[in-house]
Amino acid sequence: MPRLLTVAAAQLGPIQKAEDRPAVVARMIALMRAAKARGADFIVYPELALTTFFPRWYYEDRAEAERWFERRMPGPQTQPLFDTARELGMAMSFGYAELTPEGRRFNTSILVDRSGAIVGKYRKVHLPGHAEHDPTRAHQHLEKRYFEPGDLGFPVWEFEGGLVGMAICNDRRWPETYRVMGLQGVEMVVLGYNTPTANGHSRAETLEDRMFHNRLSVQAGAYQNSTWVVAVAKAGIEDGHHLFGGTLIAGPDGKIVGELDHEEDGLLVHACDLDATRFGKETMFNFAAHRRVEHYGLITQRAGVGAPLGRR
Amino acid sequence: MPRLLTVAAAQLGPIQKAEDRPAVVARMIALMRAAKARGADFIVYPELALTTFFPRWYYEDRAEAERWFERRMPGPQTQPLFDTARELGMAMSFGYAELTPEGRRFNTSILVDRSGAIVGKYRKVHLPGHAEHDPTRAHQHLEKRYFEPGDLGFPVWEFEGGLVGMAICNDRRWPETYRVMGLQGVEMVVLGYNTPTANGHSRAETLEDRMFHNRLSVQAGAYQNSTWVVAVAKAGIEDGHHLFGGTLIAGPDGKIVGELDHEEDGLLVHACDLDATRFGKETMFNFAAHRRVEHYGLITQRAGVGAPLGRR
Repeated sequence: MPRLLTVAAAQLGPIQKAEDRPAVVARMIALMRAAKARGADFIVYPELALTTFFPRWYYEDRAEAERWFERRMPGPQTQPLFDTARELGMAMSFGYAELTPEGRRFNTSILVDRSGAIVGKYRKVHLPGHAEHDPTRAHQHLEKRYFEPGDLGFPVWEFEGGLVGMAICNDRRWPETYRVMGLQGVEMVVLGYNTPTANGHSRAETLEDRMFHNRLSVQAGAYQNSTWVVAVAKAGIEDGHHLFGGTLIAGPDGKIVGELDHEEDGLLVHACDLDATRFGKETMFNFAAHRRVEHYGLITQRAGVGAPLGRR
Repeated sequence: MPRLLTVAAAQLGPIQKAEDRPAVVARMIALMRAAKARGADFIVYPELALTTFFPRWYYEDRAEAERWFERRMPGPQTQPLFDTARELGMAMSFGYAELTPEGRRFNTSILVDRSGAIVGKYRKVHLPGHAEHDPTRAHQHLEKRYFEPGDLGFPVWEFEGGLVGMAICNDRRWPETYRVMGLQGVEMVVLGYNTPTANGHSRAETLEDRMFHNRLSVQAGAYQNSTWVVAVAKAGIEDGHHLFGGTLIAGPDGKIVGELDHEEDGLLVHACDLDATRFGKETMFNFAAHRRVEHYGLITQRAGVGAPLGRR
């Protein structure tokens, strides 16, 4: 008997600044019901699923951004999501901006089991962008202004019969993200993203280039750790700003098993055999047999680039 | 003025067990002269370039394998390579089996400057395969029998106007390989490989699958560290055993700039702009701005998979 976890990657189309939480939650619930009808056990929504991608907007006073944050989870506006998940027996993961009782702000995602209980929380570690208004960029990307880097590491949970971990958006480009979870035996990484179609630093980069990097990062993380990766976009044009789609699921051999080709609300459903992760974990990527940690020291000793070590 | 390093990836076709070193060195010299005619400054040959891929053969007495090893570099049979490199003003890198004066054995590659001086040495860290005869495999892959894991880490050298590092074959599948060099600012990674077309553990894997994993690993390493990667095959059928080709060069945006489509001796020449590595290193992969080493601890604390860290 294969261990099947049928996952629905629930892409969200654009959320305009003027759209409120109840309207978005209604869209998410509609996707959840459709996912249930297609046999899904677990639905994965994108990063900052409840609001527009607000880090594109500069607020001199950070407090003005507080309306995009959740002070409680579930809160009154998100409770219907949890109620529907419990009603349907559907596990879920989604991202939101978290404001803690101590006033700390994180770009967060959660893992919710079929009973509607939050069993895991992840806070985005690799915040892209910048903290101050930058007039040299084609657009602002102020995640470093509105969020602290995550403080919870990259845990993996026993979840719905498998080992599941989370990442968010830019985390997917960093091999450390997947490896820290791979070293906990991860079988499925779920991640959401809001990725601008234009690179703020380069007019030469095309949509095709950006989609290529999205696939490359996800596929390499999947292959090199022999894990499923479910990558879910918020897509489309939000108040004139374009986010690309490309929601996809990669298997433990790194191959893409499905990808959405539009920028609207939509589902990609796949029955993932968690036992298919074993072959890679027991052969090519048998870490215990092949990794040589004594030569990896720089990875934790240096954050940035330092002097070359080669001596003549 | 761009900093151009024109590299020739010098794929070698098969080397049969019966072929001796002088015959192989003559082929390598022919490729070097052809590379010079095409404007190359630096020629890169594959792993274990001087002999057949002998780890496929099981010798109960390891000493019987000693004929595949080099006790001196250069030695009398390899001196003509160094002489030609000096004559042409061509830098080079190639792999060979190293037997040290103390009797230690490594799967080694070297970096040789235009004057013919060895300026860098690398010893393969990620040895694939196994140490004892394994009748369950379709073919033997005894690198763990004939070699010790490398003891020199992954240094990067100032070389020919750039920052250059080396890796060998299976190293290319491990993101740690590229990252340790990326943290030294590497601008070009050169690596050679001998990769069987069949996976000894799986009859289901096709040549296409194997080539896909080759490309994926190299492209991800290039993109995620914003470096050129030059990956050079020994290819073709050696005494009935098939090695795939697929020699390729990937740019710092992860895209393949050229790939060979045959399994014979041949050249892939590309003028690599080392300054093209700057864009990625200064933006998306500005390590100092974005890496969070406090969350990467498991990468050096655990060689193999351990318990999941998620708590409910």
